[in-house]
Amino acid sequence: MAEKQKASAIEKVISAEEISKEFKEHSVAEFFKKNMQMLGLTGKIKTLTTIVHEYVTNSLDACEEARILPDIEVQIEELGDGYYEITVKDNGPGLTKETVGKALGQLLAGTKFHRMMQMRGQQGIGASGCTMLSQITTGKPVKVITGTGKNKPMSLEISIDPKINQPKISNLVELNKEFKGLAVKARFKGVKYVKSEQAPLEYLRRTAIANPHAKIKFIAPDKSTTNFDRSAKDIPSKPVEMKPHPKGVTVDEIISLSRYTDSRQTSSFLKTEFDRMGDKALEEIRKNVSFDLRKDPKQLSWDEAEEIVKMFKKMNFIAPRTDGLRPIGEDRINKSLQSIVQPEYLSVVTRRPQVYSGGFPFQVEVSIAFGGNAGRGNEEQNQKTKEQEGGETNVFEPERKIEVMRFANRAPLLFDSGGCAITKAVQSIDWKRYGIKDLENAPLTIFVNLISVHIPYTSAGKQAISDEEEIMEELRLALMDSGRKTGIYISGKKREQEKQMKREIFYKYIPEIAFALNKLTKENEGKLRKNLEKLVLEKLRLEEEAEEKVKEEIEETMEKTKKNEKKRKKKTEAEEEN
Amino acid sequence: MAEKQKASAIEKVISAEEISKEFKEHSVAEFFKKNMQMLGLTGKIKTLTTIVHEYVTNSLDACEEARILPDIEVQIEELGDGYYEITVKDNGPGLTKETVGKALGQLLAGTKFHRMMQMRGQQGIGASGCTMLSQITTGKPVKVITGTGKNKPMSLEISIDPKINQPKISNLVELNKEFKGLAVKARFKGVKYVKSEQAPLEYLRRTAIANPHAKIKFIAPDKSTTNFDRSAKDIPSKPVEMKPHPKGVTVDEIISLSRYTDSRQTSSFLKTEFDRMGDKALEEIRKNVSFDLRKDPKQLSWDEAEEIVKMFKKMNFIAPRTDGLRPIGEDRINKSLQSIVQPEYLSVVTRRPQVYSGGFPFQVEVSIAFGGNAGRGNEEQNQKTKEQEGGETNVFEPERKIEVMRFANRAPLLFDSGGCAITKAVQSIDWKRYGIKDLENAPLTIFVNLISVHIPYTSAGKQAISDEEEIMEELRLALMDSGRKTGIYISGKKREQEKQMKREIFYKYIPEIAFALNKLTKENEGKLRKNLEKLVLEKLRLEEEAEEKVKEEIEETMEKTKKNEKKRKKKTEAEEEN
Repeated sequence: MAEKQKASAIEKVISAEEISKEFKEHSVAEFFKKNMQMLGLTGKIKTLTTIVHEYVTNSLDACEEARILPDIEVQIEELGDGYYEITVKDNGPGLTKETVGKALGQLLAGTKFHRMMQMRGQQGIGASGCTMLSQITTGKPVKVITGTGKNKPMSLEISIDPKINQPKISNLVELNKEFKGLAVKARFKGVKYVKSEQAPLEYLRRTAIANPHAKIKFIAPDKSTTNFDRSAKDIPSKPVEMKPHPKGVTVDEIISLSRYTDSRQTSSFLKTEFDRMGDKALEEIRKNVSFDLRKDPKQLSWDEAEEIVKMFKKMNFIAPRTDGLRPIGEDRINKSLQSIVQPEYLSVVTRRPQVYSGGFPFQVEVSIAFGGNAGRGNEEQNQKTKEQEGGETNVFEPERKIEVMRFANRAPLLFDSGGCAITKAVQSIDWKRYGIKDLENAPLTIFVNLISVHIPYTSAGKQAISDEEEIMEELRLALMDSGRKTGIYISGKKREQEKQMKREIFYKYIPEIAFALNKLTKENEGKLRKNLEKLVLEKLRLEEEAEEKVKEEIEETMEKTKKNEKKRKKKTEAEEEN
Repeated sequence: MAEKQKASAIEKVISAEEISKEFKEHSVAEFFKKNMQMLGLTGKIKTLTTIVHEYVTNSLDACEEARILPDIEVQIEELGDGYYEITVKDNGPGLTKETVGKALGQLLAGTKFHRMMQMRGQQGIGASGCTMLSQITTGKPVKVITGTGKNKPMSLEISIDPKINQPKISNLVELNKEFKGLAVKARFKGVKYVKSEQAPLEYLRRTAIANPHAKIKFIAPDKSTTNFDRSAKDIPSKPVEMKPHPKGVTVDEIISLSRYTDSRQTSSFLKTEFDRMGDKALEEIRKNVSFDLRKDPKQLSWDEAEEIVKMFKKMNFIAPRTDGLRPIGEDRINKSLQSIVQPEYLSVVTRRPQVYSGGFPFQVEVSIAFGGNAGRGNEEQNQKTKEQEGGETNVFEPERKIEVMRFANRAPLLFDSGGCAITKAVQSIDWKRYGIKDLENAPLTIFVNLISVHIPYTSAGKQAISDEEEIMEELRLALMDSGRKTGIYISGKKREQEKQMKREIFYKYIPEIAFALNKLTKENEGKLRKNLEKLVLEKLRLEEEAEEKVKEEIEETMEKTKKNEKKRKKKTEAEEEN
């Protein structure tokens, strides 16, 4: 029946030939123009923050690559209701006449996409997306001043032709003043400046935390100025362009790379194009593949490349090069968070670099700050927690709530937290183990920085990290490690508080009991008091010993958990390889 | 100081000219090849489901456009560990020789992107993304058989050249057999077939719920077959290509459209290109703009177009055309959920179409199913809820958990729920108001279908809807409306249970009390019993009256809340316009 069934007789069946008349091709600019939300350019507040994000990360990247200590000024001016002008000025290398148009007026053009190098930007979309938004909402091009220090600085205006994804440059003028760096001034409608968790000021605060070598000045629409001075005076050493690590490489990548190599033999091709390929590793491959490694790499078949990948998976390689990745570093994170968050206790964990599928090295840095000004202030200060009402010991000040600061290559992520691997990792941890009963209402700042030569964002808007297995694993291990340290501190603090409370209660009742005992036994009241005090101290000492034992047991369990995690990981890896 | 500060003397500052050597342009295919996770092609299980999703939505769209009752067969075969072959065959219009390559082998090409028409696909990326994934993971092209019913069916193989984003076609053969429709056979590595909430079978089950006119057959790797028969035999009437509604149009859109219009005057341009533009509306615009509407639309300046947009915002337009959108319909949703979810109570709410920024009409359908098989089965069946332990009345079976089924243009969304407007809307509702104390553990299936000529997805992977203000508002109103109805049912049920329990308790003790009273008063025990029963009934009647009053009050409050929501909405709209 179904095969022959057709629409009601009145409606004509429409043919493929007719439908094909509607077939069209579109440019990537048209695509993103219609889907601005995919670039994070949606919502009045989010849009403004995303714009600041795109310009500031470009400035930081440019300074880092050119070896300049960044000095960035961000100004937001209100021109009308929902109508703002944003100016971002840096002291970076500037852009040349040849590149400035593409950098700000063509999507998928730039220096970052094809290089395996740890940078904040990696797509060549962000700033051009802002140009498109400015043009769509105000009809105005973006104004740019660029000085490279070589020729005279130029002032020009840039817009995009979305049909062909090409920049249009106008009003190009050479300037007779000194300027080195890049200044972008753009206008936007349908945005809104506020002071909130997700607004530009908070974005810049977090940028400052993760980039202590940067000096950032922010001028708000009400002309109030905030300065984030640098707390470190050395430029982070330059990230290195990396080669893919054999462990994560796919067959397709080998084929792609082999087509563009200068090597004449597969052996030299493997040695030059991949990280950690020594003579020993080559020898092992040579022995185990069905073809001669002297073969021209351009002639490698899919099956042959697959043999190589299978060997890569079996072999033991040294972990990926760490010198290409640039963690912020435990010291700097410590200093930065101590000065900005001022917590009571702080632990920092830096994991060793790992590789996720595609051969991309990455590394995780986690810090957990507890107490003090850690966490967010809670508006509902008066709403006391149940624990307090119940009179149970509570080491948490109820007016603080947890704050998770997510970073990718040192750039803060403020939106789409629900879809982000970092949030998922935080939520997957059993925090009760570490003495944190109610994570939501704990005075914690959890700082997580993921660095990689290629961050797997879930969207071109670069606000959430995809939950790749290897990344989730590392995030979890780092969080557990840092959590463990915090847990030990919290349990110590809690024990101390309980002990103090008990002591106080006991001491409070000693005079009364002594008085009563004196009435009953006629013993000397002072003597009774002293004896009772001795008794209390003895009892507390015994309890302490018992607690020490419990503590040891907890630590043992933690150690076991740690070992089990490792085993589980190894097992997973082993399964992966099969 | 800062201006002059430089990197350590050893490191040379690098110039813009040197950096510019790394400047390159990339194709959209290269971009997505490196960012497969943005297409939803990440994770072993998710990837497989996304592939099925891309092919099946294309089949459904093609059948709908060609006016054919869809008959779709999906087969997944396991070829090795993590290695699968997926075949999707439909009875649709097929693809022509000219379009087949672009449809499956070029990103951003297709019939959907530029048309304002309610379709499941809208980007021209999905199926080509799958071709790219097949090629990356297996080195194999995708095999296709297409029959348009006009010429002989063809068999061919398609792959993509990512450097230039162009299809490569090979092994094209004309077939000497009858076939009308499209069959795609593709192989993938690094994927995994499971039976879970997020796997192909559940995806197809939900597709069947939202597309009761489709017949879908699924053959799993273990050869087990699942048939979803059609419960409706009429093709949903054809979605109409729509014009943008003036309320959501931006200045940029007016300018863009004006450059391609055939109209010679701005007045006729406005009338032909926009929805709901009558002579009266035109007259109002004519009176209030500073220029002559006889002006050539190609000459419209930004400021003039802005005047038009300002008028659009001020004027009262009829709501957008509803005949272009194709809701599933209350009856069909009811029938579909009754048959598949078998709930105890079901309410369906279809809101009127609205417009979100950009002039895109959209519409929300919500259904809440309560009790019966609604919700998900909970693995921890033995873990009883606290309410039960406390002996409090509990109308919820503790072993069910809430299930939220999200759909966009009838296509199920299984991933990225955290970042989706539908989830956010569900979470933003105060469900306690509707008698649902613990949403997570309620036996509810919440069905939400958002339809639009352009769904604002957060990512090219099309798994989450961006939380545009107007969409959030409509989702919330629909959920509250449906929640209200469910709440009345639940409170009725709960009252009935409590009454029953009271009656039972009272009746249980009547004989004992009668016996005791007889001992005390010597009154006839039977008479006492009868009097006591009368007393109990009277008491219950009075309670019932009091409850009725409370119920009325609740409904009044709900009515007020409803009105306040409306007021709030109007206020927001008024603010928006200023």
